[in-house]
Amino acid sequence: MNYQLNNIPERVVKPRDYGLTMAMDKGLSVREVEDLISTSSDYIDIVKLGWATSYVTPNLDQKLKVYRDAGIPVYFGGTLFEAFIIRNQFDDYRRALDRFGMELAEVSDGSIDLPHDEKCEYIRQLAQQVTVLSEVGSKDVEKIIPPYKWIGLMQTELDAGAWKVIGEARESGNVGLFRSSGEVRSGLVEEILTKIPFEKIIWEAPQKEQQVWFVKLLGANVNLGNISPHEVIPLETVRLGLRGDTFSHFLNNNHK
Amino acid sequence: MNYQLNNIPERVVKPRDYGLTMAMDKGLSVREVEDLISTSSDYIDIVKLGWATSYVTPNLDQKLKVYRDAGIPVYFGGTLFEAFIIRNQFDDYRRALDRFGMELAEVSDGSIDLPHDEKCEYIRQLAQQVTVLSEVGSKDVEKIIPPYKWIGLMQTELDAGAWKVIGEARESGNVGLFRSSGEVRSGLVEEILTKIPFEKIIWEAPQKEQQVWFVKLLGANVNLGNISPHEVIPLETVRLGLRGDTFSHFLNNNHK
Amino acid sequence: MNYQLNNIPERVVKPRDYGLTMAMDKGLSVREVEDLISTSSDYIDIVKLGWATSYVTPNLDQKLKVYRDAGIPVYFGGTLFEAFIIRNQFDDYRRALDRFGMELAEVSDGSIDLPHDEKCEYIRQLAQQVTVLSEVGSKDVEKIIPPYKWIGLMQTELDAGAWKVIGEARESGNVGLFRSSGEVRSGLVEEILTKIPFEKIIWEAPQKEQQVWFVKLLGANVNLGNISPHEVIPLETVRLGLRGDTFSHFLNNNHK
Repeated sequence: MNYQLNNIPERVVKPRDYGLTMAMDKGLSVREVEDLISTSSDYIDIVKLGWATSYVTPNLDQKLKVYRDAGIPVYFGGTLFEAFIIRNQFDDYRRALDRFGMELAEVSDGSIDLPHDEKCEYIRQLAQQVTVLSEVGSKDVEKIIPPYKWIGLMQTELDAGAWKVIGEARESGNVGLFRSSGEVRSGLVEEILTKIPFEKIIWEAPQKEQQVWFVKLLGANVNLGNISPHEVIPLETVRLGLRGDTFSHFLNNNHK
Repeated sequence: MNYQLNNIPERVVKPRDYGLTMAMDKGLSVREVEDLISTSSDYIDIVKLGWATSYVTPNLDQKLKVYRDAGIPVYFGGTLFEAFIIRNQFDDYRRALDRFGMELAEVSDGSIDLPHDEKCEYIRQLAQQVTVLSEVGSKDVEKIIPPYKWIGLMQTELDAGAWKVIGEARESGNVGLFRSSGEVRSGLVEEILTKIPFEKIIWEAPQKEQQVWFVKLLGANVNLGNISPHEVIPLETVRLGLRGDTFSHFLNNNHK
Repeated sequence: MNYQLNNIPERVVKPRDYGLTMAMDKGLSVREVEDLISTSSDYIDIVKLGWATSYVTPNLDQKLKVYRDAGIPVYFGGTLFEAFIIRNQFDDYRRALDRFGMELAEVSDGSIDLPHDEKCEYIRQLAQQVTVLSEVGSKDVEKIIPPYKWIGLMQTELDAGAWKVIGEARESGNVGLFRSSGEVRSGLVEEILTKIPFEKIIWEAPQKEQQVWFVKLLGANVNLGNISPHEVIPLETVRLGLRGDTFSHFLNNNHK
């Protein structure tokens, strides 16, 4: 760090199994990726190419190479998986993962109806090819899943071979884990945490207030996702108690 | 495209007369323009230098050259036209268009009171010099224009020589076509479309929900404007049914 | 300017004592700083590295050099000062200022409880080392300071040696000078201005509506802060009456 400050919460360092920041790239240029890496490569663990933006991204190979050279694994958003599934093109999806040398893949059902045993079968199959992230929660504001079902879905998907499970929020942060106002469904989160280890969950939390809420609940090393590239540095200060929002929190408490 | 997905809505390809994306540049650096072109030159048809930002932009010639070399026509926002008109400097405006080699110009009256026959006379005169876009709708939230008047204004301006008419929304998307909440004035849009061909209208739609609404109503090849540079790639996925918002729409329907 | 427009409000030119734009850098890459300077060096007077983002910013020396070479002074956000104070590391803070060759420093108490005479003592001490900006107002939405107290605090801090006083708003613009909706506490601002010269105050005003409000009240040369890098050019047009929001204002009035 650039100067010595005492009593800063300890951050697990990369490569790490928790304390993850997953950033969302929804169409950055190659040079913008280089810029992001120059400021944030110590803080970003994985990058998602949002939903199916990879379909229309030129120079995809070149962009993936820049991330790869920085040691940051990249994956295609779950909506792309669903776009292949709904078209009965699962084999094409597997070939696309190979073609671009992807190390990770996301399995989700936010925009399609997919029987849960089929979803788990996809997790099982893909886990033989890549590291799998699976996502729970609908993109549809009207589909409210009760807490005990979230827990059941998450546990089954981890058992099927998912490395981590992701709690859905979209880019906007107003579905799934959150009310349409963006407010956290705190009872849901707390009930999930009674059953699923916090290290296994990546919480999508694109809004600052959401990030603050999770850091206050789970400490500096909570896994957070859907972080906008220009918010990675600000998030790191929130984790360390160096922004107004969490400034007092870490001075009065001992947290992981 | 980077991989094969079946049943993707067909996009008209550039150069095209409809299916246009108009991006708004409100002060990008030359290098940021290069970045934008590297990711989005296939998707952007025209660029507006927002309102009168061109007045305070350094290196304007250099920036225009980068767009020109990429084959993307640029125009000055309508507020600049109005700034010249209110000062009785129309001839200076025409000279500025020449000086910078502009191929397009916008005629609007969002911030000034301009008798409609005078506005149409400006359209006629400028149409001899450049391709004219004319804009209908006020930037003033209190000025509500009834649908039959929108239709009359649009038709007269097209008759006067405008290539396309633009429906006003501002950078924020909360006036003109939209309520102050950002919600589309859907009755207005639908009534306009009974009289004016959809190919002749560019809808300013800076917010994602607005873009989704228009794509659902008019298909992948609707003309949309005031798109933020970093939202061009996301918009292209909305057009193609590859984002959650329009994912199911194109699977169940046949649209233009 | 790129073309001649008559009757544009006169802007004080750099280096200037008022009419200041303070931009907030919350983690720009070196190349993004170069881009910002290429478009906005005539318009930005000072840059704040937001709160304690400097702690986690790589290549800090290199970044500071780019700003310095452009003649733009930079300072660390007040939250960093507070982070040192709460840890009893004031001497370390002074050393950090020296180590990085900072010309400016901010003294604030937005996140800590600091007796006002102690705050003024810090201002006095730091004023011997650097140019001091002091900030009034809490980051806590629940702490409402009545106008007469704002005036007293501001006057005492100027007397203690602050070059300018800053009115708090945060990055989001919803505390201090503003209600949680972002609306200006206009009575507060007007009462402050009966006692403190407008040249001595930098108003944090991150939202466009807030900037417009201040420009309408105090003219093109009001000091405004917490401006996002991509909003510097738009703000300059607001100052000059070249955006819809202030378009009519300068045509009907004579303002400083």
